[in-house]
Amino acid sequence: MWPLSQLLVQAGYIAQSSSGMYHMLPLAKRVLGKLENLVRAEMSAIGAQEISLSTLTGKDLWTHSGRWDTVSSELFRVEDRRGAVYCLAPTHEEAITTLAKSYVRSARNMPLYLYQLDRKYRDELRPRSGLLRGREFYMKDLYTFDVDEQAARLTYESVVKAYHNLFTHLHVPYVAVEADTGAIGGSMSHEFQVLAPVGEDSVTVCHTCDRAANLEVMPGSEAGTTPVAPTDHCQFESHAGIEVGHTFLLGHKYSSMFDVTYDSPSGPELAFMGCYGLGTSRILAAVTEALASENGLRWPLSLAPYRVAVITLGASRNDNIESAATCLTEQLNEAMPGDVLLDDRCVDLSLRQKIATMRLIGVPYVVVVGSRYNARQLEVYDSHNEAPRKIAVHDLIQLAALPERDVQLVDIKRDGIHASS
Amino acid sequence: MWPLSQLLVQAGYIAQSSSGMYHMLPLAKRVLGKLENLVRAEMSAIGAQEISLSTLTGKDLWTHSGRWDTVSSELFRVEDRRGAVYCLAPTHEEAITTLAKSYVRSARNMPLYLYQLDRKYRDELRPRSGLLRGREFYMKDLYTFDVDEQAARLTYESVVKAYHNLFTHLHVPYVAVEADTGAIGGSMSHEFQVLAPVGEDSVTVCHTCDRAANLEVMPGSEAGTTPVAPTDHCQFESHAGIEVGHTFLLGHKYSSMFDVTYDSPSGPELAFMGCYGLGTSRILAAVTEALASENGLRWPLSLAPYRVAVITLGASRNDNIESAATCLTEQLNEAMPGDVLLDDRCVDLSLRQKIATMRLIGVPYVVVVGSRYNARQLEVYDSHNEAPRKIAVHDLIQLAALPERDVQLVDIKRDGIHASS
Repeated sequence: MWPLSQLLVQAGYIAQSSSGMYHMLPLAKRVLGKLENLVRAEMSAIGAQEISLSTLTGKDLWTHSGRWDTVSSELFRVEDRRGAVYCLAPTHEEAITTLAKSYVRSARNMPLYLYQLDRKYRDELRPRSGLLRGREFYMKDLYTFDVDEQAARLTYESVVKAYHNLFTHLHVPYVAVEADTGAIGGSMSHEFQVLAPVGEDSVTVCHTCDRAANLEVMPGSEAGTTPVAPTDHCQFESHAGIEVGHTFLLGHKYSSMFDVTYDSPSGPELAFMGCYGLGTSRILAAVTEALASENGLRWPLSLAPYRVAVITLGASRNDNIESAATCLTEQLNEAMPGDVLLDDRCVDLSLRQKIATMRLIGVPYVVVVGSRYNARQLEVYDSHNEAPRKIAVHDLIQLAALPERDVQLVDIKRDGIHASS
Repeated sequence: MWPLSQLLVQAGYIAQSSSGMYHMLPLAKRVLGKLENLVRAEMSAIGAQEISLSTLTGKDLWTHSGRWDTVSSELFRVEDRRGAVYCLAPTHEEAITTLAKSYVRSARNMPLYLYQLDRKYRDELRPRSGLLRGREFYMKDLYTFDVDEQAARLTYESVVKAYHNLFTHLHVPYVAVEADTGAIGGSMSHEFQVLAPVGEDSVTVCHTCDRAANLEVMPGSEAGTTPVAPTDHCQFESHAGIEVGHTFLLGHKYSSMFDVTYDSPSGPELAFMGCYGLGTSRILAAVTEALASENGLRWPLSLAPYRVAVITLGASRNDNIESAATCLTEQLNEAMPGDVLLDDRCVDLSLRQKIATMRLIGVPYVVVVGSRYNARQLEVYDSHNEAPRKIAVHDLIQLAALPERDVQLVDIKRDGIHASS
């Protein structure tokens, strides 16, 4: 069975360019752009600054960290015309640490938080369909530098909080679970998982309290650790999850490798690092898996490519319809600039077919302008009810034009599992 | 002599990662982001939609177009773990035309304008310092599909107009000149050149009319064509120029190669294409070359990383200073969100040194908050005058907080050459 993410191809969001690689078409680019702006707002709120590191990263850096060989088969390698060898960066610990070495001189230069929203590359042996696991994908990666572990733990908390804010705004069922630090190393790690049937991870969540864990680290599991001690009232249940974010308290691993030190009264001290990923293109697939139905995509208002679509009916037989639709579109567009789609294609499709197209694309509200059009009583379909509602323009604006950060999508059925850490 | 673009390194905008490749640090990322948003506004105004095509482009497509061999030495090549061969795309005619084949079915699907703002790759033999000619760089590339040459010429005109709008907003001396269509092919082409001493191109401009040309195509030049017939009143003068944009009426070259046709009453017809580039990271270097002084960068207000900087003086001896500076910053920030920099470093630098830093970075307005601070009479330095001005907060806001599209930078000396086509 194909996962629901196939809808992203079907609805014209993405097109495969080669195995595990996808072109982002206009609709996907709009959704990704909105997601990236939400991420930027959260990053900016904690004082992080955006940068873009070179995608081509010299082999020397990866040899120095020892990772050229350990993740060898997953690296796309490039040789230039002079014989210099690079990889297409799957992650940037080596590059950022080298860079930070030139800027971190004293305790005053920290905390230093640098993030990027760019493409990453990993030559996956088995790419999964769509954006779930690609070989060319989008990520937010944040790297933090602090004076010591205590400061770094405060940083860690603020990033985890920013991630909770983000997923809460996305109105998607998710959990944060303690995780194994694995190959990246470090002393503390959490995974953020969107709960969806197609997920490859198994997440255990308590329905009566805030506890959640990845099965690997659950009590009684093989790892045998108990990061979240259960109480007598705990009722655990397993869910499939899609990993969309991770947080690592890295420690001195890379700062000692690349000698990132600052002057202190007792001599040079190593900076204490953290790294924090978010799979932005994977979030598009995960939100699809968690919220879509077989009839179409369902985006939270904050991510929808357009919040409202205006569709015309019978415009070829009645000139007034097109001008009424244009007028309404302009009026709505003033309240939510760029967020209103006018579908005035003169194609002879039925109302049912036109609405089905908008539902497939996942536009939350669809207004019909036909021969019975009444500017005071709009006929509005939403993605959750079969029958249309009659509502006034300003009510539609209220429903659809909420500022990006205050968005709610109340109608989507959720299972109550959202935030736990 | 180093070009002025060295200032981008010196002021902490960019850092070299390897030959011809640069990390974009927070200041450069801010400027690039603003430029990209100005480009998006122009593209959106002509009905173009943003996409992102895979950077990794299959060898098969480039072999099919014949360009795998013709631009061979400039292509970065990548082989994956299964032996499939790709290049890191320096341009996307092959990929977009293949993609368009699936979407263009009838005349109704056109005009179709698709653009991206992404990284491109070219293994230059001799990369030039900074962002002027890199091996990894940012571009806007727009591809257009029209039903016939007549429609495509209208498209061409609207893109050229959009480019003129953009460069006018950037307040940078530039000209548009007719150009050779060269290796890309097609029937019409213009280059947009920013005039700056370091430029490698030689542009001839008439000071009494709107005529301009690249020397190659000037009357009497070797190419011998006369794209711009001079009048008796023409007074030509040569300028060095940096190519920052080009426009090509491509015709059927790629649509016939990749079979992009639509149904017409007289049978299948080939789509008529255009392609339109803008070197966005190169524009950062070109604006620097055209406007900066040896003391620092000078950005038009629409590109400045911050429009206003608030600097404190003697804050370590007087607690009121820090709170006054924070308060003023918040007030200014409300008028121009995200555009105000508070430099409250407790470093014991003199006023002169602190202002010199802000001038190096190129913040257009600098407000000093010291022991003589008066909230009604701000002490404001700008990048063009040595002496400060005393002005009220709301006057500073008027000067600095103009909406991005109405920005003026009146003080920068210009030579009267701006728009000619």
